[in-house]
Amino acid sequence: MAPARKLVMQPGPIEFSDSVLQAMATPSQSHMSPEFAQVFQETLIKTRSLFKSSNDSKSQPIVLAGSGTLGWDLVGSNLIDSPEEKILVLSTGFFSDSFAQCLQLYSDNVDILSAELGNVIDYSKLESHLKLKNYSIVTVTHVDTSTGVLSDIAKIASVVKKISPSTLIVVDAVCSAAVEDIEFDKWELDFVLSASQKAIGVPSGLSISIASKKVVDKVLARKSRAKNFFANLQRWIPVLVAYESGKPAYFATPPVQLVHALNVSLNSILSVPLDERFKENLKVSQDFKAKLGKLGLKVVPASGAETSALTAAYFPENINPAEFLSKVSSKGVELASGIHQGIHPKYFRVGHMGVSALDHTNGRDDVQKTYEAIKESLIELGYTVPTK
Amino acid sequence: MAPARKLVMQPGPIEFSDSVLQAMATPSQSHMSPEFAQVFQETLIKTRSLFKSSNDSKSQPIVLAGSGTLGWDLVGSNLIDSPEEKILVLSTGFFSDSFAQCLQLYSDNVDILSAELGNVIDYSKLESHLKLKNYSIVTVTHVDTSTGVLSDIAKIASVVKKISPSTLIVVDAVCSAAVEDIEFDKWELDFVLSASQKAIGVPSGLSISIASKKVVDKVLARKSRAKNFFANLQRWIPVLVAYESGKPAYFATPPVQLVHALNVSLNSILSVPLDERFKENLKVSQDFKAKLGKLGLKVVPASGAETSALTAAYFPENINPAEFLSKVSSKGVELASGIHQGIHPKYFRVGHMGVSALDHTNGRDDVQKTYEAIKESLIELGYTVPTK
Repeated sequence: MAPARKLVMQPGPIEFSDSVLQAMATPSQSHMSPEFAQVFQETLIKTRSLFKSSNDSKSQPIVLAGSGTLGWDLVGSNLIDSPEEKILVLSTGFFSDSFAQCLQLYSDNVDILSAELGNVIDYSKLESHLKLKNYSIVTVTHVDTSTGVLSDIAKIASVVKKISPSTLIVVDAVCSAAVEDIEFDKWELDFVLSASQKAIGVPSGLSISIASKKVVDKVLARKSRAKNFFANLQRWIPVLVAYESGKPAYFATPPVQLVHALNVSLNSILSVPLDERFKENLKVSQDFKAKLGKLGLKVVPASGAETSALTAAYFPENINPAEFLSKVSSKGVELASGIHQGIHPKYFRVGHMGVSALDHTNGRDDVQKTYEAIKESLIELGYTVPTK
Repeated sequence: MAPARKLVMQPGPIEFSDSVLQAMATPSQSHMSPEFAQVFQETLIKTRSLFKSSNDSKSQPIVLAGSGTLGWDLVGSNLIDSPEEKILVLSTGFFSDSFAQCLQLYSDNVDILSAELGNVIDYSKLESHLKLKNYSIVTVTHVDTSTGVLSDIAKIASVVKKISPSTLIVVDAVCSAAVEDIEFDKWELDFVLSASQKAIGVPSGLSISIASKKVVDKVLARKSRAKNFFANLQRWIPVLVAYESGKPAYFATPPVQLVHALNVSLNSILSVPLDERFKENLKVSQDFKAKLGKLGLKVVPASGAETSALTAAYFPENINPAEFLSKVSSKGVELASGIHQGIHPKYFRVGHMGVSALDHTNGRDDVQKTYEAIKESLIELGYTVPTK
């Protein structure tokens, strides 16, 4: 009766390591015990390292029960003081637009600067927007999971800093943290939000962020009524500061087992230099994309705008999306369907992050297995692979 | 180096069964797969049963990543339309007051009717409040974890229905679901919120609620701007309805492993009639309280107002709280300190829910072990146990 285990090769949740799954089964532990405080302390310190931030004078890591979506509310409810504030959302797909929808609950002045499908935003348009209006926040989705487009955060941050130095720079790193480079201190970012279930390699259920000192000071100084309770960083920051110093504190019960799992996954992620990890994942991604190219498939992102985290590729002509995904699934590999408005029936998405991309012990090669399932499925559906 | 495992006997997180912990380690599964949709479907149906609601024409179960605290925002942001609305919070302790603090973010008219310490509210005062103002919502904390006081929901609901039938009745069941009786349909409740880590017996990380048809209709008909994104039930209800019909849908990634764990725990909870479970836990609680009484300890709640979920007991004279808790902890049992304003250094709290109260396989008796640790610690700290 039990369905066979399938390889989860969608852009999140990804496959989890055995050690992370073991940590999920950590027996009960009091959230107020010194033992848990030590684990949470280690986890917060490593979360800061993941974003290449040096120390607590620069940044505050934030780990809460929730999801990537909750991170958008953290931004909206804590960084926007009044609905008059002007926000600029740089959009490279469905998830950027969803972030904008969230921010529209907190501001009446959310502008969206959209890139062309599959491409990064036009920097000259960004410059003219910044010159025209005084934006309090610019948001950018590092990897839009809907299109697989990688935005150049260093470049965008430098443009914003040059023209509008007081504007806060917010990065949605849900699908980029632990697979694409994020230099929180160096690029002078203000808020980066992520989640557990993508390249960070931990089951869904955690909202993982980092805030700059500037944001922390702004939040702690706020006198106006908070916009909600659970996502109120004025409540959480003192609790997180206490835990990072090794002392338990209470606002709402933290997800103890997920924090253990995050700690274990960050141990693994930080066991080699991050840049090596990114380089290795880039190679896996390039090889996979090249192989799909040889099959005659075209990827959604423009050349130079492809993330290492996933591949979004168009179906060949005459391939039925549902039939294809179901056939690949029957071969033991779960892919994701398209989600970006307008083109969603025309393409599919493959995640290649975490252990699936990087763990080759005992001959493991999830990405190769995925490629073979895709190729065989296409052939079985009548597709003729180009001979050259 | 690794600290020895301690029995977690605080009022949440509680001890988890092996089968629940195994479910926490469920290998990755797509949140959009038919396999997960089936598990989430089963889980939602059983969540409705937990609250003794009969079917989807009566109620909508809600399971989200979060915590008990997030449940307060679900109420505030979805059930309160305007800051002019009058809300009455019935308070039996710290957690009732915290719920009021959350609601004060959404309404300018939150009245608090506080019970005397350790007691339930005065019903004649409730009646006069309801006659004086037109409250849109009355909230009651079923078991205030700070005091161990059990409120009589049936009684309160009948008073509200009699005097102000249109008022929504909201119950905070964080520390009561699965240990105290909740008759959602029969008592005509409108919203009950809970969390995973107490009597429901699942690691922290889930917000678990149930909404009446009246609330669902109100939420779905709302035209005004939502107050936040993640906790917006207008977004979640269609997704939860889809999952309950066995079909995946997407708003934010659900916490797949925690949902599996909840499914497993609800299987166990619902394997015997709920009333038998409550009766058995009541007996465990009464025995434990009687034993503490024989030791000369006085409980915080008044006679008849004690919950089965936990025991809040005053220290004898000359016992130092920190020394006591640390001594009990050194005997392998974790208790919780007092938290209620004014008396918090004078008492401690013991949780006796879930497997710790009810699992006696292989001679297991967590509550007895806890009693012995308490007694020995008191004696070692110089306390003389009364001889009669």
